[in-house]
Amino acid sequence: MPSSPIRKLAPLASLAKSQGVKVYHLNIGQPDLPSPQQALDAIHQVDRKTLEYSPSEGNASLRVALSRYYTRMGINVFPEEILVTTGGSEAILFAFMACMDPGDEIIMVEPCYANYISMAVTAGIVVKTVTSHIENGFALPPVEEFEKAITPATKAIMLCNPSNPGGTLYTKEELYQLRDIVKKHNLFLMSDEVYREFVYRDEPFLSALSLGIDQNVVLIDSVSKRYSECGIRIGALISRNPEVRATVLKFAQARLSPPLLGQIAAEASIDGTEKYSRECFLEYKARRDYFIDALNKIPGVFSPMPEGAFYTIAQLPVDDAEDFCKWCLTDFSDSKETVMMAPAAGFYGDPSLGRKQVRLAYVLKIEDLKRCIEILGKALEKYNSTK
Amino acid sequence: MPSSPIRKLAPLASLAKSQGVKVYHLNIGQPDLPSPQQALDAIHQVDRKTLEYSPSEGNASLRVALSRYYTRMGINVFPEEILVTTGGSEAILFAFMACMDPGDEIIMVEPCYANYISMAVTAGIVVKTVTSHIENGFALPPVEEFEKAITPATKAIMLCNPSNPGGTLYTKEELYQLRDIVKKHNLFLMSDEVYREFVYRDEPFLSALSLGIDQNVVLIDSVSKRYSECGIRIGALISRNPEVRATVLKFAQARLSPPLLGQIAAEASIDGTEKYSRECFLEYKARRDYFIDALNKIPGVFSPMPEGAFYTIAQLPVDDAEDFCKWCLTDFSDSKETVMMAPAAGFYGDPSLGRKQVRLAYVLKIEDLKRCIEILGKALEKYNSTK
Repeated sequence: MPSSPIRKLAPLASLAKSQGVKVYHLNIGQPDLPSPQQALDAIHQVDRKTLEYSPSEGNASLRVALSRYYTRMGINVFPEEILVTTGGSEAILFAFMACMDPGDEIIMVEPCYANYISMAVTAGIVVKTVTSHIENGFALPPVEEFEKAITPATKAIMLCNPSNPGGTLYTKEELYQLRDIVKKHNLFLMSDEVYREFVYRDEPFLSALSLGIDQNVVLIDSVSKRYSECGIRIGALISRNPEVRATVLKFAQARLSPPLLGQIAAEASIDGTEKYSRECFLEYKARRDYFIDALNKIPGVFSPMPEGAFYTIAQLPVDDAEDFCKWCLTDFSDSKETVMMAPAAGFYGDPSLGRKQVRLAYVLKIEDLKRCIEILGKALEKYNSTK
Repeated sequence: MPSSPIRKLAPLASLAKSQGVKVYHLNIGQPDLPSPQQALDAIHQVDRKTLEYSPSEGNASLRVALSRYYTRMGINVFPEEILVTTGGSEAILFAFMACMDPGDEIIMVEPCYANYISMAVTAGIVVKTVTSHIENGFALPPVEEFEKAITPATKAIMLCNPSNPGGTLYTKEELYQLRDIVKKHNLFLMSDEVYREFVYRDEPFLSALSLGIDQNVVLIDSVSKRYSECGIRIGALISRNPEVRATVLKFAQARLSPPLLGQIAAEASIDGTEKYSRECFLEYKARRDYFIDALNKIPGVFSPMPEGAFYTIAQLPVDDAEDFCKWCLTDFSDSKETVMMAPAAGFYGDPSLGRKQVRLAYVLKIEDLKRCIEILGKALEKYNSTK
């Protein structure tokens, strides 16, 4: 089981903090934006006497509300096709366990969200990667790469669209290519679309459930990012394949139920938050515009321009980004302030590929991002002059 | 992956309810007692703007509060030895995955909590059972039975004390026997002690962490039952073995964090609730005293007297308890009321053993339990006269 590249340096960050150093967290997609007031109000007004189990598949009223939400987003799903999960994380695990047996293979596009790999390890399934590259903004690798990776044991392809960590928004053509591979080999397409509302290219978002391969698609979702509610642990697994849902339900029953209070907050966030969502979107877009431009102005740093989500993978002028990330926490500070970044190697199946890269989440306000850029520039200069 | 015996008849119960039948739920340990007012107050007063991630290991303040709680209970553990989980369910899964590899074997005392088996399937580990018997109140099987079940692949023994589903409180002698087996074969002892506050024999509860085999013990806990907070999904995994904790932490990081709002409610429940806990205890004891006596007065029904938790396994005068449980939901009602029970076969590794048994949770108020007894008596009479 690999350590999370996002969280494994946390002890060093704690140590730095205990020594009075302020740490800016670029390592984790923990937005600083407020949750919708409706969600907080709903929590303040919980009128239950007993905080009881909810149904394993989630509260009926939340599933109905989610169905309304997806319909607004152009994805027509019935409440019965939605299973509420304990965060998107659990939806990933359930998808893997329900659709694959231990030893089966799944193809991921590296760099990929590190916890996909952790969840695959948990489920005992084997990860094969096809590599996307920083030079072309982590575009989908050519079909031939997928064909090369497919074996008789391949059961699924995992996609994150828009992607964490690369910030890639896959084009219609890329998604059609994937659809054709999935159909040809009768695979599952696991599509993590939790960042669908953070798309910075001016075109409608195309869900995997709109590709005409309904029975093969498992949609992973979460309210964490879109309502700045990472802590409530509410996600969803959506499938039009009744066999998949029946199997997922067994895993859901084994863990009894998703969190009750989180469901209440999530349900309250779904309707009447259009203005909130628009403001969040514009804020992230402004942060992206500032941050990527500023990153590329640091000597030796390169970041593609993300077209979705709120992450980027940046190449740094260092040989060992993990060592540099640690050093920033243990040996460096600028006026008692430093930055925490996630070494990108952990997002690759082949860790040698990301050794000079870090994943950065631009989830801080621009004022803080400006300070981060300043600190990062100074840190790189000092690191490279002393090593 | 087996279906949960506790929840698999839920669709039939829903159908009955949709036809206007009131269903008394004896199938699930969902207490009807209120949660502590402190917990509800804490939720109503949440003063955060952003419902953010918590640390993967749980909020530091909750871990400190839990440490105080365990110390009060005579179990001295440091906050660092406690990892907060998403319910006891997740603690079970993490314990299995951290301490065993796929293919490894775990020994469970059947009948056992059905979700242990589900979680073992999830973790890819093999369940071997030693059988306890209704005639002697599901006492620990003799040491020889364990010795027979142990193979080179055996890595752990799972215990629930006091037990769900049998209501057994293991004696000091039984626990010492287990300790000796664990030491002799260098196994893990996974001890689920979520019902420790519901002990009806007049002696102090003996935790597995008091057996002198600290490095081998993984304690499973949950606030669900003791504060009537099943829905908040807060449990804990406690181990004095640093390697176990380090591995569990990796799984914890992969799912990011336990539920924030549940942690707030749980933390508020820990101190100042002694009176609440005493009242809950007395209420469950009264329910037990009434319910078991009344059960045994139904012709052909036998239940041992549980000494802990709030369940019992009862033997019914039917050949196929699952068929009877279904029939109660589909073909029977008394003045538009019926009972839902959990067929006990699903709690055995060898389902043929529990075919005449049901698991009953006495988590309803005595007035309702009285009505359940009446309904069950009539149902058995009618079932046996028509079959």
